[in-house]
Amino acid sequence: MAVYTEVSDDEVEKFVAAYDIGAVVALKGIAEGVENSNYLLQTDRGLYILTLYEKRVAKADVPFFLGLMEHAAAKGLPCPTPIAARDGKTLRELHKRPAAIISFLRGMWPKRVLVTHCSQVGEALARLHLAAADFPMRRANALALPGWKQLYQSCRARADEVQPGLAEELGRELEELAARWPRDLPEGVIHADLFPDNVFFMNDKLSGIIDFYFACNEALAYDLGICLNAWCFEKDGALNATKARALVRGYRKTRPVTAEEIEALPILARGSALRFLLTRLYDWLHHPAGAFVQPKDPLEYLKKLRFHRSVKSASAYGL
Amino acid sequence: MAVYTEVSDDEVEKFVAAYDIGAVVALKGIAEGVENSNYLLQTDRGLYILTLYEKRVAKADVPFFLGLMEHAAAKGLPCPTPIAARDGKTLRELHKRPAAIISFLRGMWPKRVLVTHCSQVGEALARLHLAAADFPMRRANALALPGWKQLYQSCRARADEVQPGLAEELGRELEELAARWPRDLPEGVIHADLFPDNVFFMNDKLSGIIDFYFACNEALAYDLGICLNAWCFEKDGALNATKARALVRGYRKTRPVTAEEIEALPILARGSALRFLLTRLYDWLHHPAGAFVQPKDPLEYLKKLRFHRSVKSASAYGL
Repeated sequence: MAVYTEVSDDEVEKFVAAYDIGAVVALKGIAEGVENSNYLLQTDRGLYILTLYEKRVAKADVPFFLGLMEHAAAKGLPCPTPIAARDGKTLRELHKRPAAIISFLRGMWPKRVLVTHCSQVGEALARLHLAAADFPMRRANALALPGWKQLYQSCRARADEVQPGLAEELGRELEELAARWPRDLPEGVIHADLFPDNVFFMNDKLSGIIDFYFACNEALAYDLGICLNAWCFEKDGALNATKARALVRGYRKTRPVTAEEIEALPILARGSALRFLLTRLYDWLHHPAGAFVQPKDPLEYLKKLRFHRSVKSASAYGL
Repeated sequence: MAVYTEVSDDEVEKFVAAYDIGAVVALKGIAEGVENSNYLLQTDRGLYILTLYEKRVAKADVPFFLGLMEHAAAKGLPCPTPIAARDGKTLRELHKRPAAIISFLRGMWPKRVLVTHCSQVGEALARLHLAAADFPMRRANALALPGWKQLYQSCRARADEVQPGLAEELGRELEELAARWPRDLPEGVIHADLFPDNVFFMNDKLSGIIDFYFACNEALAYDLGICLNAWCFEKDGALNATKARALVRGYRKTRPVTAEEIEALPILARGSALRFLLTRLYDWLHHPAGAFVQPKDPLEYLKKLRFHRSVKSASAYGL
């Protein structure tokens, strides 16, 4: 949650005038997304989201993200659609930053996750994977094994400040994952960050998927591993197998998975737990004093990591 | 700027069902106000602001704030109107906090202050003072001389961390202000925090005044002193006399001021500078690491304070 850049009213008015969406009525910085500055833009024609891409998002990647949203929305996925300006461009510049106006999605993200949310998220995830199958652009996953190693290197010396023994445990984990990481699973474009605050529901029906700014090409089942971690654990750190089953069933209804994908789930979920543990650990150790963003607890993901390490097979997820 | 409380979708839906404003469509935490949690609430009938009153606002004061907004809005002032639920109440409870839904105002606050903004703000301030003249509730100014002394006491020991000599300078300032503070000026309800981010404009016409959460009974001209500090200084710390003149003229057009009020302006502006210096200093020294709110620079107000101390009369403001 963050608004980093304060844009002036003049700048916004000039920016919006390049679009055919009416005149600016109001602009409010909203607490959504941690990588970018997001504003709710009201014009006399409706509501939109104005996004300024901040430093953490590489400028070269923005066309991939906007293109993917456009591609998926055109196939009926409930995701934001980038709005083209009169010159046909969706990616423009505002306050010296890449900027885009995207459509506003109705709904709220679920603070309390229900089983029905999990099964709908699984289904939507599969729909995204299918919709993106013929998306022509590619983006490598910057947060795969080599990225984890880099993060680990820059955290190792201070990791034990967070929990004694953490540096050693993560080092061992990285080695094991590198040795056992599956290589031949079906690949495609994954969302890579489909947490509850990125999925909207209205009356418990999924109404939107947002925040495509980690999307990349990767093993599709890795996205399921991420969702298992993000949706199917209770506050006390225990897996809710009913939710896990609902998630995977929802997914399989729409995209059949191979036996290899199911078999790989524990290691994929373990890798995903390590990925979020490492980025949280990095933010925890490196966030500047007085920063707008409250860093998230890395240890939540240590519990999940240990759980996945302990399971014998995907049957532990209720499958 | 802050959203402190995360309310669940269920809670919000139940809360909104007590009102006759339609069903919840979306809810976004917005970066507005530092004392409360503010959300933009979209229902199928329109946009509203949902405010949760956090600890820094005394629960006993909320009826004063809501009543004042209602009173002023009924007299045509462009300020938010609290919406009554079906039971007639405007003040309710959500997530164990006092909460209210208020009307949404169009417009944006000016990041770059123009002379026309100053004259319109002066006029709106006078309109507020007149509109509130028959408002029956009272609230003491918690940030008058005794409050400043308290803040000073809790900052004195560490004030020199911010600038060497600051503790001594502020101590002397407090003594002088206590000795010379005017006592017999016309009093009434003042806004007490009418900074640019609390005033909206559309096409450079004032469209809204928000954030009444410091309003209190006080010398009316003190509010002018606050606005002089908030609107009429340039980034380099120098007073812009054209803006100051426009502000006071805009005010006088609507509410004639006495000779005593004009004469008192330098000392009132000085007191107001000290007030914001002290609260900023307090926040600077006491804000928790990792807090959502970036503390504002207290020294900006030391410059203003010194300027007002140096002036011989209100003619320094271009009057």
